[in-house]
Amino acid sequence: MSKRIEDLREHLAQNGLDWLALNPGPSLSYLTGLQFHLMERPVVALIGADGRVMIILPELERAKVAALPFDAEIVTFGDDPATWQGLYQQALRDLGEKPLRVGVEPTRLRFLEIDLLRRALPKAEFVDGSLAVARLRMRKGQAELDAMRQAAVIAQNALVNTLKTVKPGQSELQISAELMVQLFKAGSEAELPFAPIVSSGPNTANPHASPSERKLREGEMLLIDWGASFGGYFSDITRTFFCGEPKGEMEEIARLVEKANEAARLGGRLGMAAGDVDKLAREVIRQGGYGEFFSHRTGHGLGMEAHEPPYIFEGNPQTLEEGMVFTIEPGIYLPDKYGVRIEDDVVVEGGGLRSLTDLPRSVMRIDDFLAAVEKGART
Amino acid sequence: MSKRIEDLREHLAQNGLDWLALNPGPSLSYLTGLQFHLMERPVVALIGADGRVMIILPELERAKVAALPFDAEIVTFGDDPATWQGLYQQALRDLGEKPLRVGVEPTRLRFLEIDLLRRALPKAEFVDGSLAVARLRMRKGQAELDAMRQAAVIAQNALVNTLKTVKPGQSELQISAELMVQLFKAGSEAELPFAPIVSSGPNTANPHASPSERKLREGEMLLIDWGASFGGYFSDITRTFFCGEPKGEMEEIARLVEKANEAARLGGRLGMAAGDVDKLAREVIRQGGYGEFFSHRTGHGLGMEAHEPPYIFEGNPQTLEEGMVFTIEPGIYLPDKYGVRIEDDVVVEGGGLRSLTDLPRSVMRIDDFLAAVEKGART
Repeated sequence: MSKRIEDLREHLAQNGLDWLALNPGPSLSYLTGLQFHLMERPVVALIGADGRVMIILPELERAKVAALPFDAEIVTFGDDPATWQGLYQQALRDLGEKPLRVGVEPTRLRFLEIDLLRRALPKAEFVDGSLAVARLRMRKGQAELDAMRQAAVIAQNALVNTLKTVKPGQSELQISAELMVQLFKAGSEAELPFAPIVSSGPNTANPHASPSERKLREGEMLLIDWGASFGGYFSDITRTFFCGEPKGEMEEIARLVEKANEAARLGGRLGMAAGDVDKLAREVIRQGGYGEFFSHRTGHGLGMEAHEPPYIFEGNPQTLEEGMVFTIEPGIYLPDKYGVRIEDDVVVEGGGLRSLTDLPRSVMRIDDFLAAVEKGART
Repeated sequence: MSKRIEDLREHLAQNGLDWLALNPGPSLSYLTGLQFHLMERPVVALIGADGRVMIILPELERAKVAALPFDAEIVTFGDDPATWQGLYQQALRDLGEKPLRVGVEPTRLRFLEIDLLRRALPKAEFVDGSLAVARLRMRKGQAELDAMRQAAVIAQNALVNTLKTVKPGQSELQISAELMVQLFKAGSEAELPFAPIVSSGPNTANPHASPSERKLREGEMLLIDWGASFGGYFSDITRTFFCGEPKGEMEEIARLVEKANEAARLGGRLGMAAGDVDKLAREVIRQGGYGEFFSHRTGHGLGMEAHEPPYIFEGNPQTLEEGMVFTIEPGIYLPDKYGVRIEDDVVVEGGGLRSLTDLPRSVMRIDDFLAAVEKGART
């Protein structure tokens, strides 16, 4: 049995779960090393509190389970969906009559798999079991942190190379296409954490904008939120720039977001509640008078997923533990005008937080930013 | 109300559904134009058979629904998951007491959303409602076909530019990284249909291989399965190459797969069952004596998803209709030796199938392939 599955068994027991049911995704990869695309075929792995592992998968994926480093019962199915329910029922027949508590990951398992499982295990109760595996995945080991550091380096190099080509008159989509090219040139793996956000002018006031045909103009803000992938792990960074000279409240909100980022990044401590990290950033912005314009949480966990526990929101009692990695990304968004966000990836280490991302954080003109990077300004 | 929502209402009624519940994904985008990342926040749109539309989404996404071209009831929630169930219950309180049939998309809706909905609508029955929207999405309109043609052009250009750089000694990962760069240079949108498959030597015998550090060697097969994205629509193509001189059964299986691809591509007809298209390809390979090594269906529908209806598998009674787009991708995989797959994207048009992809299909040496492309050999 692998060490991670061994560790999982304890957490299953603690959560009163008989089984954990996983479909393709990061937890399955984390626990078994298996990589599948999540598609229309219902791949399910069941991991028991007794250490038993069953994997139900399409016949054409059989090669992937040929060399598993632990014992597993393998059942395969063909391409006709009409045969799947019967196959699931047969595969799980020796469990079907027992009252079981089966943990699932609510953001991962789909109606497709849940429905097959429910019918095959009519006496089972399906409950949120995400904590059992999240407890393991939240605390990153050395190899995982090395991969995340490399994902940060790749993302940062790609941004610098992209900024060298950015000019007023280019569209958000043009800039994001160049950033994608630079991400893969810099060594990112194929599965990016998310499609980069490149927003300009009033679009920067929408925290989740998608790149559009809108052209960047002199005197505007430019916001880029992007990440890379390495060894199956992600980075997720945001930097905001002045395109030319700042005007209006641009300078004021920029300095406030810088201070909020710094307050959380330098103030976060081992053993602190996640909600208190949020408070560190939020208080700065509140006291600056822009509290209502910081419309989202301060951050989210990061790893094999772009968003994973621990979530850094107001009131979250989750205690910060050694090896947890999350983003710190306060922002201020003035509707129809402009917005600023500054996002770093930090790890709980040596009692405090250490940033995996070190590009200059200050909001400045692109040419000043490139000059600062050239001079070696990493912080 | 938008034309597509209007059309959906008929299909909801035909399928005996009171509501369709959608989370972020292609169907939501298709029907409403809304684009969300599928994340840990439970965005749900409910579309009623009476035309009523309700959208429950995070406060920070509110800007996205500000300018919807149809009437919708909007409810927003904050970052604390503990508040979501109450919010859902309140939002759906006037439906909560009625026995309803709510359709869902089994490959899309997750335990997260299903559980919130089940508790808010305790008398509702949740059933597979994917056909209601699939019936609309399967038949592509002119604008959709134009986007898919462009997605094919982008993918083909990217492959040609990549092949110019391929040499024995390069790893599968190196080749796939170059292909990614070329895809974005050629104009692909950020969300690729899937990470390209680049497999060499014995890895070509695994239909779903992931690119590895394995280096391509003279005398081997090279298989590339890739696609691009344009206007939210995908292409999905496979070509197989000899790296140097073919040996063993390479030539034989290559010619057989070419014939199987051609048999389905030229033989498919409007009104034929999808299963009979599968049979056209499968018979060629069976008669050639390799039936057991064609271990997957002949193809799958393609559009806003890399895999969507209609699925081209043995026995599928689904009738081919004008405007349906799907792949034809027969293959032969000899375990531990090599494999060949040739995949095109076809549309049902003018009584038969027309291919959106036109790179040479014949398995040949890379330099011969590039020379053929140079000469304008598109078919």
